[in-house]
Amino acid sequence: MGSSIGVGLIGLGTVGSGVVRLLRDAPAAMQRRQHLDLQLRRIAVADPAKKRAVDVAADLLTANAMDVVDDPDVQLVVELSGAAGAREWIAAGLERGKDVVTANKAVLAQHGEELFGLALANGVDLMFEASVAGGIPIIRSLRSGLVANEVESLYGILNGTTNYILTRMTRREGGYREILADAQEKGFAEPDPSMDVSGMDAAQKLAILCRIAFHTTGTGEDVYCEGIEQVDTLDIEYARELGFTIKLLAIAKRGPGGVQARVHPAMLPSESLLANIHDEFNAIEVVGSSVGTQVFSGRGAGQMPTASAVVADMVELAERKISGAGSAGGDMILDDGAASLADMSELEIRYYLRLLVEDRPGVLESITHIVAQGDISIASVIQKERDLQGGTVPLIIVTHEARERSMRQAVAAMNELDGVHEEVTVIRMEKL
Amino acid sequence: MGSSIGVGLIGLGTVGSGVVRLLRDAPAAMQRRQHLDLQLRRIAVADPAKKRAVDVAADLLTANAMDVVDDPDVQLVVELSGAAGAREWIAAGLERGKDVVTANKAVLAQHGEELFGLALANGVDLMFEASVAGGIPIIRSLRSGLVANEVESLYGILNGTTNYILTRMTRREGGYREILADAQEKGFAEPDPSMDVSGMDAAQKLAILCRIAFHTTGTGEDVYCEGIEQVDTLDIEYARELGFTIKLLAIAKRGPGGVQARVHPAMLPSESLLANIHDEFNAIEVVGSSVGTQVFSGRGAGQMPTASAVVADMVELAERKISGAGSAGGDMILDDGAASLADMSELEIRYYLRLLVEDRPGVLESITHIVAQGDISIASVIQKERDLQGGTVPLIIVTHEARERSMRQAVAAMNELDGVHEEVTVIRMEKL
Repeated sequence: MGSSIGVGLIGLGTVGSGVVRLLRDAPAAMQRRQHLDLQLRRIAVADPAKKRAVDVAADLLTANAMDVVDDPDVQLVVELSGAAGAREWIAAGLERGKDVVTANKAVLAQHGEELFGLALANGVDLMFEASVAGGIPIIRSLRSGLVANEVESLYGILNGTTNYILTRMTRREGGYREILADAQEKGFAEPDPSMDVSGMDAAQKLAILCRIAFHTTGTGEDVYCEGIEQVDTLDIEYARELGFTIKLLAIAKRGPGGVQARVHPAMLPSESLLANIHDEFNAIEVVGSSVGTQVFSGRGAGQMPTASAVVADMVELAERKISGAGSAGGDMILDDGAASLADMSELEIRYYLRLLVEDRPGVLESITHIVAQGDISIASVIQKERDLQGGTVPLIIVTHEARERSMRQAVAAMNELDGVHEEVTVIRMEKL
Repeated sequence: MGSSIGVGLIGLGTVGSGVVRLLRDAPAAMQRRQHLDLQLRRIAVADPAKKRAVDVAADLLTANAMDVVDDPDVQLVVELSGAAGAREWIAAGLERGKDVVTANKAVLAQHGEELFGLALANGVDLMFEASVAGGIPIIRSLRSGLVANEVESLYGILNGTTNYILTRMTRREGGYREILADAQEKGFAEPDPSMDVSGMDAAQKLAILCRIAFHTTGTGEDVYCEGIEQVDTLDIEYARELGFTIKLLAIAKRGPGGVQARVHPAMLPSESLLANIHDEFNAIEVVGSSVGTQVFSGRGAGQMPTASAVVADMVELAERKISGAGSAGGDMILDDGAASLADMSELEIRYYLRLLVEDRPGVLESITHIVAQGDISIASVIQKERDLQGGTVPLIIVTHEARERSMRQAVAAMNELDGVHEEVTVIRMEKL
């Protein structure tokens, strides 16, 4: 008891600097933890000569991440580099019997099975609260707080950039491209925003949550994924009229064919909690067999929220080690019973379709004929007199529950019609 | 490693039966935890002969709670009795070196200092996730997930019964007495609802949260407390008109004079997340120095949500013990630096006042004179033509931020006026 824990940091960028700051200005809750003594012993950075946002002793710095991993005074490796070598460094730390904390969702989503297996085999722990939803303690809530539940479903707003863009579009502050450009200028969106706007960032996070909640082994690529690039302000306005709000949702649900995992723009009832998560905030709604519906919301990114999650993991690991505990064990490891992620074709859901159609007799009839052939039942149709754009008008179709496979066939057929201009926009409508 | 943990249960009522059921039908997440083996070894009940909602072997039962505490095969005592002896049994368990889980908020709010001290002195842990907000993992989120934060404020809807009543009043389903009676009939409110409707239940929960978040030693009695008995449907209608929703809020904030802790009906902006927590749901909004604003919501009571929280604590304690860890340590114990709960008189906030006044010249002038003397600035006044009730009309005054002390003096003076009938209703307006 009372011995200190040597910390090695890989990466001293935004989040790494935040972690250093929190270790220095330890909040009261950390100071009050008896025997907790975290000592920063080694820091790997790309360029040790570069000026830093936080003061650290020059002799702590190294340009070689393996120096951190190999340092005998480092018992806890904190990987925050976002670099290509992250998987290797995490693995090396675990193999040397060191606990590891990482915020790297891409590595966990892709190599989770290998890395959690290494942790178990070496009697150490790999923690990753910061990898999903920033400062929201969703990982420990699922692993520990809700351990006495079968998770039935999980709906998340897991990407702050896209939620920020959709929120501003919903506030009528502009169209997708305009707001994205503005967000990039202000630093709210990456110079290359493709991971965010394509939904892939959310899909990787969802794969991590699915591993905990549903014991699946799928990676980000196994998650069905559509981004927000096709969402038009028109869709947002029609959604509003129908009482819905458009969000980029990450959804996982237990179904007959396995666990269904998907990321796509979705219409949510405007009075639902998730529809009211604005700007860059994240939220996760979990339905558990014992607890029912729970919602967690907060900042999903940013320096200090993310650093807060990293330090929470560090404190937990250090306390465990100091109190003499072994590894937390293999709840992240999947045995033969691991479920796979189901494909989408059996999904049954309501659909919103927006078509740009020629304003002439027969077009609507061709469309409704296709819909009827697919055994899809229409709930409502909206076609208003609008400023004609070269003789075309927007046509909105809202269906009753229909099967994804049928809908895809129907949409493909609509896209072939002479009277239909542009690709048909399809947005799924979630009940929650 | 791999040894089983003997569990002793005190109380086999609603929550106790739920715990037994969860131990039997262990969800996958529990089954996947290596080495976790919880064995129910002894159960204390008031009447061992009574028919039970769950099947338990008759030889496990005893009428004496101390049999559970003293049983050498019991390492983990789970106190769910709600009985007067709870404090004594919890203390006895800790003194015998056993970990204890309880859902008893009253005992923790009143005797926390003693009991957490006993746990520390005996190298064991006292866990209590179920004591606040049922299945929502707010205790472990504050203790662990947000450990790298100074908590700046905490706003909670911590009582399901009152939220249910206010929600139905807001939906125009009746007045306070009528809905309370209906809730009692349906079993949603206790036959004696005074702990709930007076705000005392929420105040006890707030005292527990304040211990974690602000390291205060106050009990439920140190929390300023007003109930919902005086909230009229008229107030709910005026609130709606002003863009607000009335909730029973439990609020704790760091301020100049210490930590301010209060439970009272409050008007919240109707578009805020907390205003949209309906029915028997609970929610807690926490602002942390690193993470910013986070919201947790879910079912705050009920058999399985509460049992879920109890079992989460049991799993954590058992895993800790099995892996050879010592006690989690003294983060719940307060040293000399413990803050006290501040009194209310320095509070500065906006107020809503509803008066029933005689509809004659001079009355409004007397009232505005009192307000001006208190250096209170009026933001708006609503007085509509309504069905006169014996020559009186409702008068609504909304103030700018004013000091609680001045407001109390002003209200006392208004209550003395001839032209003012009934006590003035005062509801604080929270910004969030």
